[in-house]
Amino acid sequence: MKLDTLQDLFVHGLQDLYSAEQQLVEALPQMISAAGSEELRTALQEHLEQTRGHVSRLEDLLPMVGADGAAEKCEGMEGLLREGQKVIKAPADPMVKDAALIAAAQKVEHYEIAGYGTVAALADILDLDDAKDTLGQILDEEETADKLLTKIATGGMFRVGVNERAPS
Amino acid sequence: MKLDTLQDLFVHGLQDLYSAEQQLVEALPQMISAAGSEELRTALQEHLEQTRGHVSRLEDLLPMVGADGAAEKCEGMEGLLREGQKVIKAPADPMVKDAALIAAAQKVEHYEIAGYGTVAALADILDLDDAKDTLGQILDEEETADKLLTKIATGGMFRVGVNERAPS
Repeated sequence: MKLDTLQDLFVHGLQDLYSAEQQLVEALPQMISAAGSEELRTALQEHLEQTRGHVSRLEDLLPMVGADGAAEKCEGMEGLLREGQKVIKAPADPMVKDAALIAAAQKVEHYEIAGYGTVAALADILDLDDAKDTLGQILDEEETADKLLTKIATGGMFRVGVNERAPS
Repeated sequence: MKLDTLQDLFVHGLQDLYSAEQQLVEALPQMISAAGSEELRTALQEHLEQTRGHVSRLEDLLPMVGADGAAEKCEGMEGLLREGQKVIKAPADPMVKDAALIAAAQKVEHYEIAGYGTVAALADILDLDDAKDTLGQILDEEETADKLLTKIATGGMFRVGVNERAPS
């Protein structure tokens, strides 16, 4: 990693997110298969489509800043998805597995929120207006996806589950 | 990992955060040494003190839910801190290194925001009021730390840096 200028940091951040999003496109189908509730499966499926769109928008942006798509594998996302794999494989009550999948997916969302927050701020500082708009839109989508997962997690599904399991 | 009940997921989440916070206590001193600006060093130093407090509060909580402190190493935080190590070691302009350290630290903060968000919501669902209060307080501190880093990153330091480097 070479960090002589803020532009270097910006390009490094884009390449890191490109690797992160590519890893997520590979991982999400397994999370979707492991999810029990239709609501969660639908939310993750929609996020998979969005994530493919983010890969494509990053593929448009990278050549504009003199980078090709290739980058080191993003180790942050790699660790998060390794945690997600453990959840997918764990023997679990289906409702609890859904709660655990949501928790794992929200860690992924927050990784991306932090990452896009940084590159959007750098695009602003570097006066790269088109990149700033694109990255700001992706950031909004990640924040919306995170809020939807919170809504699913706190919206009744698990409370009903806890009550059903209360001793009679 | 055993996920029969939401209580299992809650305990697993606390143990994961305990490992994450312990790793962060080890890593933050190197980030502080690598930071160039006094403002950033002070913010990271204060966050180190807070992080030690989080470790201690988790050590109080874990026995109350039948767990000891020991847990698997948190792989999510491990990956994030490996990224942070690369930033610390990278040859860099001091201002750019500070921006990169902030970016790495915000990924760590967002990991913790997602993690504490989950366990605070689970404490609420499980009617564990004291745990919910404690975890909610830690969540607030992580969100405040993240906002402070954004303020440092966007508050002028880097804009001045860019302007100074503009071709004359």
